[in-house]
Amino acid sequence: MLRWFEHDGSNSDIIISSRVRLARNLKKYNFSLKLEEKEAREMVDETCGQIREAGFFNDYHTYDFKDLDACQKVAMKERHVLSNFLLHQKTAAGFVSPEENISIMINEEDHIRIQSYTAGMDMKAAYEAADAIDDRLGDLLDYAYDDQYGYLTTCPSNVGTGMRASYMVHLPILSANNRIAGLATEIGRFGLVLRGIYGEGSKSMGDIYQISNQVTLGLSEQEVIENLNNITQQIMAQERALRKQFVKQQKNSMLDMVYRSYGLLKYARKVSLQDGMLLLSQLRLGFSEGLIQPACENECAVYQLMIGIQPANLQLMSESELSGEELDMQRSRFIRDNLPAIL
Amino acid sequence: MLRWFEHDGSNSDIIISSRVRLARNLKKYNFSLKLEEKEAREMVDETCGQIREAGFFNDYHTYDFKDLDACQKVAMKERHVLSNFLLHQKTAAGFVSPEENISIMINEEDHIRIQSYTAGMDMKAAYEAADAIDDRLGDLLDYAYDDQYGYLTTCPSNVGTGMRASYMVHLPILSANNRIAGLATEIGRFGLVLRGIYGEGSKSMGDIYQISNQVTLGLSEQEVIENLNNITQQIMAQERALRKQFVKQQKNSMLDMVYRSYGLLKYARKVSLQDGMLLLSQLRLGFSEGLIQPACENECAVYQLMIGIQPANLQLMSESELSGEELDMQRSRFIRDNLPAIL
Repeated sequence: MLRWFEHDGSNSDIIISSRVRLARNLKKYNFSLKLEEKEAREMVDETCGQIREAGFFNDYHTYDFKDLDACQKVAMKERHVLSNFLLHQKTAAGFVSPEENISIMINEEDHIRIQSYTAGMDMKAAYEAADAIDDRLGDLLDYAYDDQYGYLTTCPSNVGTGMRASYMVHLPILSANNRIAGLATEIGRFGLVLRGIYGEGSKSMGDIYQISNQVTLGLSEQEVIENLNNITQQIMAQERALRKQFVKQQKNSMLDMVYRSYGLLKYARKVSLQDGMLLLSQLRLGFSEGLIQPACENECAVYQLMIGIQPANLQLMSESELSGEELDMQRSRFIRDNLPAIL
Repeated sequence: MLRWFEHDGSNSDIIISSRVRLARNLKKYNFSLKLEEKEAREMVDETCGQIREAGFFNDYHTYDFKDLDACQKVAMKERHVLSNFLLHQKTAAGFVSPEENISIMINEEDHIRIQSYTAGMDMKAAYEAADAIDDRLGDLLDYAYDDQYGYLTTCPSNVGTGMRASYMVHLPILSANNRIAGLATEIGRFGLVLRGIYGEGSKSMGDIYQISNQVTLGLSEQEVIENLNNITQQIMAQERALRKQFVKQQKNSMLDMVYRSYGLLKYARKVSLQDGMLLLSQLRLGFSEGLIQPACENECAVYQLMIGIQPANLQLMSESELSGEELDMQRSRFIRDNLPAIL
């Protein structure tokens, strides 16, 4: 079974994924930030026990931080299965679907975070999947809910629906033309926020960004998604218009850039993370715009390579601990082994 | 029949070719610089006629500038068949051997210039070939010769033997370490001179240089060659020591550089002359040092690619006149079509 990032979805020239996450808390316990270590352990164990007993998630992968080393946890974060916040918790556990599109995190900033990914632009599907999980968990667990405010959460910005919806977008040409900072300011006025590839506090790499809603209180899930969709459509239109212009006016230079990136990815013997992400970004652009043709249509999901070259995922594939240079060499090997053939 | 630059010779890790040229003048005519146009035409026609009649050079290619366009002449210069000086003559003609190793130029700076190339380090062979041609021409033509001074030439620096011997050398590591300027100064003290790839007044490209003798008067051919050999051996030793050190201390970076160059050569869609020469220089270094293996040992004479990507040679292969960008695209196609496969 393919993981969600191993195939492309709709509007995949720009949209890598649609993501919905819901924040939920249990009435019985203090919010995570106020939980003593012992209580956190108790909350995690009790909640995981209830979920396991219900049998809903028998085919899911279960993890508990007490059994994982740092590298395993970081690798999960690199695959978007864990959040940055969870990564820094001492006590935590969770459930991950086989396709890795659904992740249930226990003892995140809120007691429960439900996260749902869909490849490409399909927020409806992402929302419905998260909502279905939420319904099941809601039957099982006693959520902290207020008739006036909605779901109660640690951070006031999440109160209400407890939902954040976000698109992961690939904006190589807006990025190359220094249009990202302006874009971030602009969409802020619509209650949205632009972040780096790994969300809050992360840097951008490979021209990949997350666009998500900032506010949830006073808006329904549908309103949040509609607003996000409208703005994202406009950003897509801007990126596409610029791409069209560049491909028209500088076709040969674009072809050269894309093929050079392919040549470097195929032959380099050391590739840094930044370098690899940039080269893969240019290759992804080339596939999207038809500048370069993959030999097999189904094998051009470049984003899976972007995940694969992250440091902890590379380390996991290796038997010994990799130094900086060894990591760059391992990265080049991974790319060579997984780079799609071209026509 | 392979042309001399289509195969490698001895010490080919550094030495691309050994070249001898002899300057000769005819008693009957003023030196070239003092020849009126009409006399030049007469000298060229008479000399070429005598050479043709003798039948020595029946398998040689004959040319006369009155039948060549600028591009054809420049392309011959790029293949080292014509000198820079001849290129700018209005009236000139010549004979070129099938392997292009022997070139007899009529109405160069001197009436007759005999040039002999050998792949790799073999100045003896280059000299003997030039000397044999000189003997034949000497029987046929009435050379300007003085018992005290030797062969009389236009430029006093050529008086005596009229010989210049030069090695074309590939010095990528000395070059990358900014050691060329120092080297040029150093060898000047031994009566030698370091020049760019196309000799006098030309720039270096692809880390290729010519080392040749400056002075001929008062020295025998053997003394000139011995002096040149001694100094060249020292330069070879310096380049080799540095290569060895880099390959030992920075093996992975060297491998990466060489393979990246190969990837760019194989996939780029536009390649400038400077860029192409640099990438080919790195590939040549990679083959020489065994960092990268050609699939077929006989197909790794990178220098022929360096000649092939020169502008006029590319233009000659094309049916229409190429603009700057088209030339860079044509260059990338030529490289793709001729790049040796690797293991």
